[in-house]
Amino acid sequence: MTISAPRIARPRTVLVGLIGEGVAPSLTPPMHELEGARHGIHYVYRTIDLAAGEGTAPTMERLLESARRLGFDGLNITHPVKQTVIPFLQGLARSAAAVGAVNTVVFEPDGAVGHNTDVTGFGAAYDEALSGAQRGRVVLLGAGGAGSAVASSLAARGVDDLVIVDVDVDRAGQLAAHHRARCVAPTELGVILAEADGLVNATPSGMIAHPGIPVDLGQLAPSAWVADIVYRPAETELLAAARAQGRLVMTGLGMAMHQAADAFEIFTGETADRRSMLDDLTRLVANEAGADSPPTHH
Amino acid sequence: MTISAPRIARPRTVLVGLIGEGVAPSLTPPMHELEGARHGIHYVYRTIDLAAGEGTAPTMERLLESARRLGFDGLNITHPVKQTVIPFLQGLARSAAAVGAVNTVVFEPDGAVGHNTDVTGFGAAYDEALSGAQRGRVVLLGAGGAGSAVASSLAARGVDDLVIVDVDVDRAGQLAAHHRARCVAPTELGVILAEADGLVNATPSGMIAHPGIPVDLGQLAPSAWVADIVYRPAETELLAAARAQGRLVMTGLGMAMHQAADAFEIFTGETADRRSMLDDLTRLVANEAGADSPPTHH
Repeated sequence: MTISAPRIARPRTVLVGLIGEGVAPSLTPPMHELEGARHGIHYVYRTIDLAAGEGTAPTMERLLESARRLGFDGLNITHPVKQTVIPFLQGLARSAAAVGAVNTVVFEPDGAVGHNTDVTGFGAAYDEALSGAQRGRVVLLGAGGAGSAVASSLAARGVDDLVIVDVDVDRAGQLAAHHRARCVAPTELGVILAEADGLVNATPSGMIAHPGIPVDLGQLAPSAWVADIVYRPAETELLAAARAQGRLVMTGLGMAMHQAADAFEIFTGETADRRSMLDDLTRLVANEAGADSPPTHH
Repeated sequence: MTISAPRIARPRTVLVGLIGEGVAPSLTPPMHELEGARHGIHYVYRTIDLAAGEGTAPTMERLLESARRLGFDGLNITHPVKQTVIPFLQGLARSAAAVGAVNTVVFEPDGAVGHNTDVTGFGAAYDEALSGAQRGRVVLLGAGGAGSAVASSLAARGVDDLVIVDVDVDRAGQLAAHHRARCVAPTELGVILAEADGLVNATPSGMIAHPGIPVDLGQLAPSAWVADIVYRPAETELLAAARAQGRLVMTGLGMAMHQAADAFEIFTGETADRRSMLDDLTRLVANEAGADSPPTHH
């Protein structure tokens, strides 16, 4: 038997990507890569941008198969293909099955498994910021992909009266039915807000490209808290106004960080340093606010 | 104007892969990743193993397109698809055009460009180890992919009489015609060797899976040097015998390192630390020699 030379320590590598429309300026890649560096992992996170209308089932099937073949450990999936990918997965975690959408795919030896860390991410952020707050009646604005994740999180936390409002009344109705919640038309919002314990904005209102406030805060019960899932900017007009009224508020940074941290843990099997990830995200968003040409999406 | 928060230093990332048959145990990925780490680059090098017969033109076209789409910076290409990829490239470097084979593809903004760092790698190794040696007549054993790269390097270095020998006489003839060299049948080898200045083994003889010596060293002129492109093990039976005769020898480690270093420089634009890469490769090969179940290929 020969005595071996000392083994060479090759750094651990992780390779993941984000598929969706307009993903190039996403802050999720730097969050993952910076957290990977803290773990001594050589972490590469690539964005795979889809053109409008390109995210068809055949395209998603091919991209998933290619990513697996080329050695990706997993993928994040965003608008508009969070549902399109589902038929091409071999397993669905509870988070994804509950909401019928996948934002995280991990290539396990037995096949691709879908998770939804928007659901778990909003839940973790809520538990940190608002677990002590009243939640008898919560009004959710927006029944799209993000609203759907929020509804699933809130339903799992036993909100008695979850009221969903969307300009697309059919979409609001379907989401409400799915979570034994109820929906109201935008015109009825005032009455509902007057007796709400909390309000969650899951519409794009307040994003850099969609300035404005999605609701009349004067109609909201004075003691009600306000949460926003928009995090670019971190302080939306809605939150600034709510804060000025002395309300308890929750920014979108927590959900954005926790969805990334949850995906990081799924991809790597390691425990994310969530405090450092939040610091990174806060600085990334602040950098952006100071930039001349801020990205407009994600 | 807003004052920006301090920028977050995101590590540079490089993503490449190796496509070919039996590539899983290749030592090129660790060489690249270790060199990347010395440059502070988070370098991910994946192997994409082809099943026997899978490396068809449609497969290679799809893999190249997928790799570009999923954010790869480039690819190494090995047996048996070094020629199969050529129709799907938008440019060919001189190294690749000269030999009609590509082992390195870089995704430039204008398209995929093919290089051949087997050619430049053998050349660099030769220049280091043998540039002061006689090269009037050099005998090249093996006219396959590696032999083809060696022939191109030697022809560019002005070898007067390059003699190519292969059990496949047609293949030897074609390679000789391409480089204005000549070929002889294996039966005529003894006469040629008696007046050779040097001998290069570019057959698999001497690899762990193909033990043995490809030639009778007793027939070789006493002053002639011997080079081997086999590097697993680094000391082949051929080189050990040549060394015992007091000959100048060149192991395959130099070519294996330089082909990787040249590809690293093409992928990254940075200057490779070739001495450290050779140290890494030497240790990787030594580790392998001490292992219970050594890989048999690449």
